[in-house]
Amino acid sequence: MSVQVESLLPGDAFDQNCPTRVVLDHVTSKWAVLVLVALLEDGETRFSALRRRVGGVSEKMLAQTLRTLEADGFLSRRVVPATPPQVSYALTDLGRGITEHLAGLVGWINARIPEVESIRRAGRPDPGARSA
Amino acid sequence: MSVQVESLLPGDAFDQNCPTRVVLDHVTSKWAVLVLVALLEDGETRFSALRRRVGGVSEKMLAQTLRTLEADGFLSRRVVPATPPQVSYALTDLGRGITEHLAGLVGWINARIPEVESIRRAGRPDPGARSA
Repeated sequence: MSVQVESLLPGDAFDQNCPTRVVLDHVTSKWAVLVLVALLEDGETRFSALRRRVGGVSEKMLAQTLRTLEADGFLSRRVVPATPPQVSYALTDLGRGITEHLAGLVGWINARIPEVESIRRAGRPDPGARSA
Repeated sequence: MSVQVESLLPGDAFDQNCPTRVVLDHVTSKWAVLVLVALLEDGETRFSALRRRVGGVSEKMLAQTLRTLEADGFLSRRVVPATPPQVSYALTDLGRGITEHLAGLVGWINARIPEVESIRRAGRPDPGARSA
């Protein structure tokens, strides 16, 4: 009973024992970010098209990422009758909510990368002096 | 010269050769997300306080995360004269911009974790049937 009550409370990602940490890890993996944002931009997408869209992802990593995101309720999976059968994926309402934040993040990085790159190229003056 | 011109173009995180990928990896590491959001919420923070705030982070991982984020231009580092000297960190304007998206993400997860957890607990009906 107390578990039931606790599970309705909001989480605290700063607490290492909070289940939010697991979900944060799932959605911030490189492939998850890109898969979710691709589905937000493109709508329902077949596995093969998703693999072409997300540059560099392997079939295995894509399948694993999709399974994790489906288990968390962020996307739905549909088998499209065809020969051979096609599998397609789409965001759920829950997935759309979280992905809006990720799309904002990716959009920000895409837009500001020249500035970040110029800072990174300028380099750090003295790495030896920076241990905290 | 062509490098100079190219570097002013926006990025494309779906392209595996785009430098956005490196920055995306940096800011979506578990510790980076939490460190950035902590600095947005708390303002300038000393290393030791940051370590207590971000549950579970080791001294080594925190130092490494801070160095990476500083090199990307997202945070600044200041040595506070004291005995022993203290080191403190704060978001730059650039860092504040990207962190607003991460704070939205963490806030969403904190708020919706009960719903995600109930979906995860319900489980997937037949893992064997789901290979893509």
